[in-house]
Amino acid sequence: MLVQETARAGEEQERGVADESADALERYGHGGDWVTARQRFGWRDDGKVLDFSANLNPLGPPPSVKAVLADALRWVTRYPDPACRALRARLARRYGLDAEHVLVTSGGAEGIDLVVAAAAPRRVGVIAPSFGEYEEAARKRGIPVTVLIARPEDGFVPDPSAVVDGFREADLVFFGQPNNPTGHLYPPVWLRDVLEALWRRGAVTAVDEAFLDFVPDEDERTLLSHVADDRPLVVLRSFTKMFAIPGLRLGFVAGPRPLIARMAALQVPWSVGGLAQAVGEALVEEEAFVVETRRWLAQTRAKLAADLGGVPGVTVFPSAANYLLFRLDLPGATVRDLQEALGRKGILIRSGHTFRGLSAAWGRVAVRTEGENDVLVEAIRAWAAER
Amino acid sequence: MLVQETARAGEEQERGVADESADALERYGHGGDWVTARQRFGWRDDGKVLDFSANLNPLGPPPSVKAVLADALRWVTRYPDPACRALRARLARRYGLDAEHVLVTSGGAEGIDLVVAAAAPRRVGVIAPSFGEYEEAARKRGIPVTVLIARPEDGFVPDPSAVVDGFREADLVFFGQPNNPTGHLYPPVWLRDVLEALWRRGAVTAVDEAFLDFVPDEDERTLLSHVADDRPLVVLRSFTKMFAIPGLRLGFVAGPRPLIARMAALQVPWSVGGLAQAVGEALVEEEAFVVETRRWLAQTRAKLAADLGGVPGVTVFPSAANYLLFRLDLPGATVRDLQEALGRKGILIRSGHTFRGLSAAWGRVAVRTEGENDVLVEAIRAWAAER
Repeated sequence: MLVQETARAGEEQERGVADESADALERYGHGGDWVTARQRFGWRDDGKVLDFSANLNPLGPPPSVKAVLADALRWVTRYPDPACRALRARLARRYGLDAEHVLVTSGGAEGIDLVVAAAAPRRVGVIAPSFGEYEEAARKRGIPVTVLIARPEDGFVPDPSAVVDGFREADLVFFGQPNNPTGHLYPPVWLRDVLEALWRRGAVTAVDEAFLDFVPDEDERTLLSHVADDRPLVVLRSFTKMFAIPGLRLGFVAGPRPLIARMAALQVPWSVGGLAQAVGEALVEEEAFVVETRRWLAQTRAKLAADLGGVPGVTVFPSAANYLLFRLDLPGATVRDLQEALGRKGILIRSGHTFRGLSAAWGRVAVRTEGENDVLVEAIRAWAAER
Repeated sequence: MLVQETARAGEEQERGVADESADALERYGHGGDWVTARQRFGWRDDGKVLDFSANLNPLGPPPSVKAVLADALRWVTRYPDPACRALRARLARRYGLDAEHVLVTSGGAEGIDLVVAAAAPRRVGVIAPSFGEYEEAARKRGIPVTVLIARPEDGFVPDPSAVVDGFREADLVFFGQPNNPTGHLYPPVWLRDVLEALWRRGAVTAVDEAFLDFVPDEDERTLLSHVADDRPLVVLRSFTKMFAIPGLRLGFVAGPRPLIARMAALQVPWSVGGLAQAVGEALVEEEAFVVETRRWLAQTRAKLAADLGGVPGVTVFPSAANYLLFRLDLPGATVRDLQEALGRKGILIRSGHTFRGLSAAWGRVAVRTEGENDVLVEAIRAWAAER
């Protein structure tokens, strides 16, 4: 496992390892950037675009979201509850926590930012490849980051002792469960051993469960029930992906009361909009939608993995989430080339070169509806056949 | 003029001078907190509540907002443009700036927070009474604050040399133009002299124009046209008050390119939601609505000021904004008592005791429609008659 001790920041102000070149689709470090894509590919009709670069549930949003949106004016014309009291109470009840263990955030991104701000670590630890905002939230504050590069041949799960040893200087460590962009889950015993070793050392651990609601045994795997005041465990959650509401900005964080209080004090007032809070209250009850999504995902992901893996030169990595990481082995061709060719046809995918620890030999695609996935696979197959 | 050198923070984590007592309506430091008010007064029907504690335009939102909301699902189900490019371009065109001078923010509150974060001052300067978030944004980062208490007998406009001298240690100074909760405008010459003196010293000045669009000669008064790369001037703006959309969270900041770039780098990704951006694009064009609001406000505020000032014991302070500061001189009675009595009738007002430099002898009310203002004045008159 490779260890990268990244430089103390300050010089590097921009997002994560975002590709800042003028033509890069991920110039802001993420997928789903329609404005850049529109400029780049000159699309005339957005309605025909297939976005596989953002990991959103194509079954969403559920009807309850539409019902709240129909009454949007009511929520827009009042100040939001500054303490999100109703939603916090519902989340606490749903997950068996006290309301003081919960902070509602403006998307998962604000949760990551506030954990770094509140924990004020001397050094942050990240296992790459992973979501770029863990590193970015540290970097923009001038906090150095230790990055451990996990290897695909290990299933992106490094030896636990190497992780504990590699993060000996880090007092805040992030884990994606499941991890983005790989889609892998850390085994429960692995995660428990690593977290406990880090806790004994006094490090805060932040487990990002933004995609865990796509995993059928979420209830056994979630660490929300392990949140306690005497344990430096923070769990990050998002409503964005499962419910397909990235434009509303809604997530939450659970953790020990003193750290949550510190995060709340650092949060920008009214950071979570009124409409977002109202939608969140409806979504806490949407268990049937989640169950239906998991059933649909298991089937649809398996077919997409098989079909995509059937394209010559493409290897698909197993995923527990609603996206697939793949590797392209075609001489002289990269996923950036593929991204460009597909973009011109109105299909967006994510290139791996903007994830630390991956290269443009890698790509990530969301699982969309079966018909849309077929269009994607056929487009990739046709492109690969021309190489 | 009294100078308060507030302690280096850390101990004080909570919002501004918020009254944290369990029964305080302003426990989060602001008006418009319906959730607290509902708990406190046991209202059954929110629809009958008259909220004079939040300064929102009762003519709003304009129809264009409702049109965008009708199409809300489109904006909710996509990631927002992380760089708000379309709205930034429109704002830049509207105010004669370059897009790189403009940063769209999640309400005015995020603008204040990011100015403090990006300027990273050694000490912040604030003239009180003023909006609590200037002080709070510094305090939560452990940055000390110099507070100059302005006196009502000076129209809350201190001697300029006293301001320049009082802020000699401050390298970031906030001004409200018009100021909240007083409603006063700093005279153009006063403001120019003070700002230039502070600039010569290298201090960054942040002028909060969140309510300036209510002022008929906004175009002459706004400092937006003075924003330049070689001048440490930041102008804060909000869509919240004029367009009555506090639940959406939308504002913007203009300033020198390097500072704006630093603020953008520190901003939480997708901080401004997709629906908010779409609404903002519509609102940049709403000039007729703004003009109509100003015409309405001039008349309605004059009548409310006269009527409220006609209540024995009440003195109304002249205001250029859509709210009025008043002073109550009734033996043994405070505006907190009045707030409590009105709250039980479903009428919310703001007590001055949560503004540094004021006391519970002061209160603030928004200008609402003429009929609603009449209800307010009659309720205050009836309450005062019983003292």
